[in-house]
Amino acid sequence: MAGNIFGDIFRVTTFGESHGAAIGCVIDGVPPGLMLSQVDIQKDLDRRKPGQSEVTTQRQESDTVEILSGIFEDKTTGAPLALLIRNSDQRSKDYDALKDVFRPGHADQTLFQKFGFRDHRGGGRSSGRETAARVAAGAVAKKVLSPHHIQIIAYTKAIGTIEAKVVDLAFIDKNIVRTADPSCAEQMIKRINEAREQGDSVGGVIEVMVKGCPVGLGDPVFDKLEAKLSHAMMSIGATKGVEFGAGFGVTKMMGSESNDKVSVDQGQIRTQGNLAGGISGGISNGEDIIFRLAVKPTSSIAKKQNAVAKDGNLTSIEIKGRHDPCLCPRIVPVVEAMTALVIADCLLIQKTIK
Amino acid sequence: MAGNIFGDIFRVTTFGESHGAAIGCVIDGVPPGLMLSQVDIQKDLDRRKPGQSEVTTQRQESDTVEILSGIFEDKTTGAPLALLIRNSDQRSKDYDALKDVFRPGHADQTLFQKFGFRDHRGGGRSSGRETAARVAAGAVAKKVLSPHHIQIIAYTKAIGTIEAKVVDLAFIDKNIVRTADPSCAEQMIKRINEAREQGDSVGGVIEVMVKGCPVGLGDPVFDKLEAKLSHAMMSIGATKGVEFGAGFGVTKMMGSESNDKVSVDQGQIRTQGNLAGGISGGISNGEDIIFRLAVKPTSSIAKKQNAVAKDGNLTSIEIKGRHDPCLCPRIVPVVEAMTALVIADCLLIQKTIK
Amino acid sequence: MAGNIFGDIFRVTTFGESHGAAIGCVIDGVPPGLMLSQVDIQKDLDRRKPGQSEVTTQRQESDTVEILSGIFEDKTTGAPLALLIRNSDQRSKDYDALKDVFRPGHADQTLFQKFGFRDHRGGGRSSGRETAARVAAGAVAKKVLSPHHIQIIAYTKAIGTIEAKVVDLAFIDKNIVRTADPSCAEQMIKRINEAREQGDSVGGVIEVMVKGCPVGLGDPVFDKLEAKLSHAMMSIGATKGVEFGAGFGVTKMMGSESNDKVSVDQGQIRTQGNLAGGISGGISNGEDIIFRLAVKPTSSIAKKQNAVAKDGNLTSIEIKGRHDPCLCPRIVPVVEAMTALVIADCLLIQKTIK
Amino acid sequence: MAGNIFGDIFRVTTFGESHGAAIGCVIDGVPPGLMLSQVDIQKDLDRRKPGQSEVTTQRQESDTVEILSGIFEDKTTGAPLALLIRNSDQRSKDYDALKDVFRPGHADQTLFQKFGFRDHRGGGRSSGRETAARVAAGAVAKKVLSPHHIQIIAYTKAIGTIEAKVVDLAFIDKNIVRTADPSCAEQMIKRINEAREQGDSVGGVIEVMVKGCPVGLGDPVFDKLEAKLSHAMMSIGATKGVEFGAGFGVTKMMGSESNDKVSVDQGQIRTQGNLAGGISGGISNGEDIIFRLAVKPTSSIAKKQNAVAKDGNLTSIEIKGRHDPCLCPRIVPVVEAMTALVIADCLLIQKTIK
Repeated sequence: MAGNIFGDIFRVTTFGESHGAAIGCVIDGVPPGLMLSQVDIQKDLDRRKPGQSEVTTQRQESDTVEILSGIFEDKTTGAPLALLIRNSDQRSKDYDALKDVFRPGHADQTLFQKFGFRDHRGGGRSSGRETAARVAAGAVAKKVLSPHHIQIIAYTKAIGTIEAKVVDLAFIDKNIVRTADPSCAEQMIKRINEAREQGDSVGGVIEVMVKGCPVGLGDPVFDKLEAKLSHAMMSIGATKGVEFGAGFGVTKMMGSESNDKVSVDQGQIRTQGNLAGGISGGISNGEDIIFRLAVKPTSSIAKKQNAVAKDGNLTSIEIKGRHDPCLCPRIVPVVEAMTALVIADCLLIQKTIK
Repeated sequence: MAGNIFGDIFRVTTFGESHGAAIGCVIDGVPPGLMLSQVDIQKDLDRRKPGQSEVTTQRQESDTVEILSGIFEDKTTGAPLALLIRNSDQRSKDYDALKDVFRPGHADQTLFQKFGFRDHRGGGRSSGRETAARVAAGAVAKKVLSPHHIQIIAYTKAIGTIEAKVVDLAFIDKNIVRTADPSCAEQMIKRINEAREQGDSVGGVIEVMVKGCPVGLGDPVFDKLEAKLSHAMMSIGATKGVEFGAGFGVTKMMGSESNDKVSVDQGQIRTQGNLAGGISGGISNGEDIIFRLAVKPTSSIAKKQNAVAKDGNLTSIEIKGRHDPCLCPRIVPVVEAMTALVIADCLLIQKTIK
Repeated sequence: MAGNIFGDIFRVTTFGESHGAAIGCVIDGVPPGLMLSQVDIQKDLDRRKPGQSEVTTQRQESDTVEILSGIFEDKTTGAPLALLIRNSDQRSKDYDALKDVFRPGHADQTLFQKFGFRDHRGGGRSSGRETAARVAAGAVAKKVLSPHHIQIIAYTKAIGTIEAKVVDLAFIDKNIVRTADPSCAEQMIKRINEAREQGDSVGGVIEVMVKGCPVGLGDPVFDKLEAKLSHAMMSIGATKGVEFGAGFGVTKMMGSESNDKVSVDQGQIRTQGNLAGGISGGISNGEDIIFRLAVKPTSSIAKKQNAVAKDGNLTSIEIKGRHDPCLCPRIVPVVEAMTALVIADCLLIQKTIK
Repeated sequence: MAGNIFGDIFRVTTFGESHGAAIGCVIDGVPPGLMLSQVDIQKDLDRRKPGQSEVTTQRQESDTVEILSGIFEDKTTGAPLALLIRNSDQRSKDYDALKDVFRPGHADQTLFQKFGFRDHRGGGRSSGRETAARVAAGAVAKKVLSPHHIQIIAYTKAIGTIEAKVVDLAFIDKNIVRTADPSCAEQMIKRINEAREQGDSVGGVIEVMVKGCPVGLGDPVFDKLEAKLSHAMMSIGATKGVEFGAGFGVTKMMGSESNDKVSVDQGQIRTQGNLAGGISGGISNGEDIIFRLAVKPTSSIAKKQNAVAKDGNLTSIEIKGRHDPCLCPRIVPVVEAMTALVIADCLLIQKTIK
């Protein structure tokens, strides 16, 4: 109800604030018998952690995860997995100046009005730091997917007006913006660096592919696969839109264009073009699932902005902390994790039907 | 789990197939003491029902709702409301020709593969007809909103490439495409009629406004208000994307542009521009909530298309039934209903906090 | 949340008041492909319906059920089943005299104080009539159990101080008190008739057996099988206690007595005595599951009693309606239905593990 | 679904095994603004911890709790509370001898068959140790109750055949068996010590009182207050029965006896006798809520017993570990905690109605 639990069967509860003692999660509903080690989870956390490259925040967090429960002799037991990440570089004094000001574009004001309370040390639960717990949970979800050979890949599709045209999956982890288009990477990095130098930030688009998803995931009414994935994606801070397959482009087509052309290939029904993004009537149809996310520019910028103080008066603010000038590179592993949570949950739900 | 229940506290379960005996819903968690009559619900159903105008399907359904429970002396009692709509014009013989063919763009194939079963009489649960039950539930949700003076208004923003520029709310129910721009309505109607005459269909964009929403709805982590609304919107068949405020446009901005400018007006914090779409950090901020939906062209078209038969062979199909050449006009009340369900639920959840 | 939904995967929502238009239920999560007809459900309803025998209320309700959805060609489709029972013999004028009085032993006062509202026509949702919807749902749950050869049998174990000693399952439906002990039935009937003649009522004990339950149902922590069954049982009006296996008797034993003696029979682990009632550590162990319920005497009695009026003054009351002088015979099918709901749900949950 | 989450709004997830790194819980839905410190929680844990007295196990665990999140400046923030208790005295070598044997009366066999897996180090999730996390959560739930002046008190009502007659609440924490009857305590202690000396164990009865509970908690259908409390109680290992008010005794009464006599006292409706146990029609009626639990003798005993080995052969076992010869004294705080979880949850649910 308070919205810190995600999933129906594979159920993740995250906890922790950006400047508290620790963050982490508990996962209930993990099937027994999956091989799982600390390294499997750490690997994914390392892709998300701050301070990786010139285009990310310089905050230093080792983000070392400890598995507290749910594992015996390197296998899941069916008991809940608790994963703990201690906060090391809290530097909440960075936030002392912000104690009485609501940062523009942030949840500071709405959280205060919702809870009647202000935890001014960073964004509290609204901090991007909370997503480390999601990435940890996602690493476990991937263990549910791997026997099905389901692969989830996200990458930066656009930074500002620079749009990738090519999808070369092998390139994604070879460049610090995590684009799949080798011809764009340098331009994108330049664009982000310019933004930072101006004390500003820049937005972008993330694209996600789910390869090898079996037919039949998702439900025909309220829990369509697009609905569950959209819920997951729009629960990531900074996302302002999501679209599947042809997305908003489909609104300008005729039905005779937008219906994917069907064919039969070695007894398998296939669709050409995949304008539907791999989902028909809310249910996976066997093609690659494809969707895109609109990521807004980072709200924390060094440039001077108007802001409202807690006492209701107008003031101005220059945010000094260490912030990502563009969220895309570090959102990639978060998006993959949230996608993994949804697909793992749907796989387990489907077991109750067949 | 099977996805026919929506909401956490205000909880709606829909039932019924397009060509079965009846459709309807049960709503659990309706607060006691709300004035409610059959007419309140019927009024909304009449806005959605088929056969309203030249731009909608000619299927005839009176869509008369009966309240079976939960009301005593014209007030809700706190008991579940059951709402029943008998199907009258079932004409499932229209579908006999489709018995062994999977219609392109529909859920026929995926439902069959998911459940191992084919109910070929119309789309079964995947039929747009199911949304009548949602509209009925939405009419009840609006009763929860009305003491708070919250208003939900949806309208057709675009049909194909024709895009509305003006928002004149009073105009919406004065034109059969339900656009808010008086200068576009005729063109839009013409566009839809052309599509129908060609045996084809056309897509569009719906925009939604929530006026008067109090600050504080939605939660900071998984159940951000955008996440819940996106789940609701993407659970409506034919939607392929959703965006809030500046939406995908935000990806091309700098942070100094996309952060809404704040001001203080008579002691109230206000934002200018409302690029955030009325939601900050997943929580309503007191501005109008604004979002848009991508609606694909109707999948059922009269034009000849390739299709796969149940036996796995390729065949061709011309869909003869009576179908909407554009879904936008009739989706408007569905979108309003689903929005009302989310906002009512969030209001009740917020009562557990304050 | 409002407590009209039961189950995690096999999810039943009941609706309807004793003196409204109809009662019924919607079941979400019914697996596809189960053979099911109206007759299957009606048969169980007939065992519960009023007016069956001299020891039950003389209220006449045909309790005819209509299946509104979820079935195609006599098989479940995976869509929600909606089941409708119209009320025929409402006679709410019987209740006019009770309009301003809270009946002793009933929920009249607590419902009024909880909801700020009084539906004085019978007990509203608190009426035993609501359980007809549970029996209908239970008939569907049994279809989930039957491929596993799981059988659920309940019977009257005691009426007042008359306690059955023998369990002859074949006898249960041959006597109107539904006891399993042929030597007690007549005495029990006599005891109930005496109570009625005195304008009074009498309590009793129901015992339940689940035969053929596979090992592994139930979960080790909050959702122990006893916990879920107890929740189900104690949600039936008039129940004031539940005990498993040796039950309260176990409190007077030593551990060396209460631990079931184990043996191995043809490779199967068996326990002797079954003091655990077929459940070890919250999980079914393969033995018969056995539990008992304390059923209080009917609260509605003809004898004059003190009562509190809605205006807060003390008055007296003689309840004239047509009431069961003992609830046990008609609770038997309700108990079986609720047990079937729990076991079916646990079976489906277990599919997500193995 | 996997049953490690409890509650609807005040939602507790526990994790951890008896012989793993740690146990703990995360609580979602904690209202903001409650004063809470580590000491508040530790105090309750100290009442449950092992090694307190001669009648409890000699296992030594400091059970020191750390609050990881959800608190700022000694107040809850509305964010999830994570509570961590490191295991110190794991001595899993005690269990090496048990590696290949299923302990009688335990969940060893059923867990193995359910999950296809054996964690032989103590009971894993089925260990009583898991209840420390519940006690920690209960201490937080009490903070929700305290502004309402609701008090929850449990005590040992019987040990074997020795039954307490008197209820002197002030005496409970002055004796190591936690009975409320000063005349019984010594006998009860003697009885437990005898059992231990014989290498055996003994059962008992716990009684619980909720004082000051407002009218209106619980719901009229599936979530009757008795149903939710029974679910909670029967989820505690070793409980085999629960009864409310007159409990099983009511089955031998007439309706004219079992209906509580009503009266009006200074404008308040009161019932005399409280045979209903403070709950009418599933909803709290303003009287003390009273219920009792059957607690079986500890399953782990030193006496030689038959047991089945993992290979399916019959063997014998003498359990050497350090075990409570009677569970009652240490179950008392667990029962109070689980009761607090239910009442806190019902209070928050009731806020959505009124």
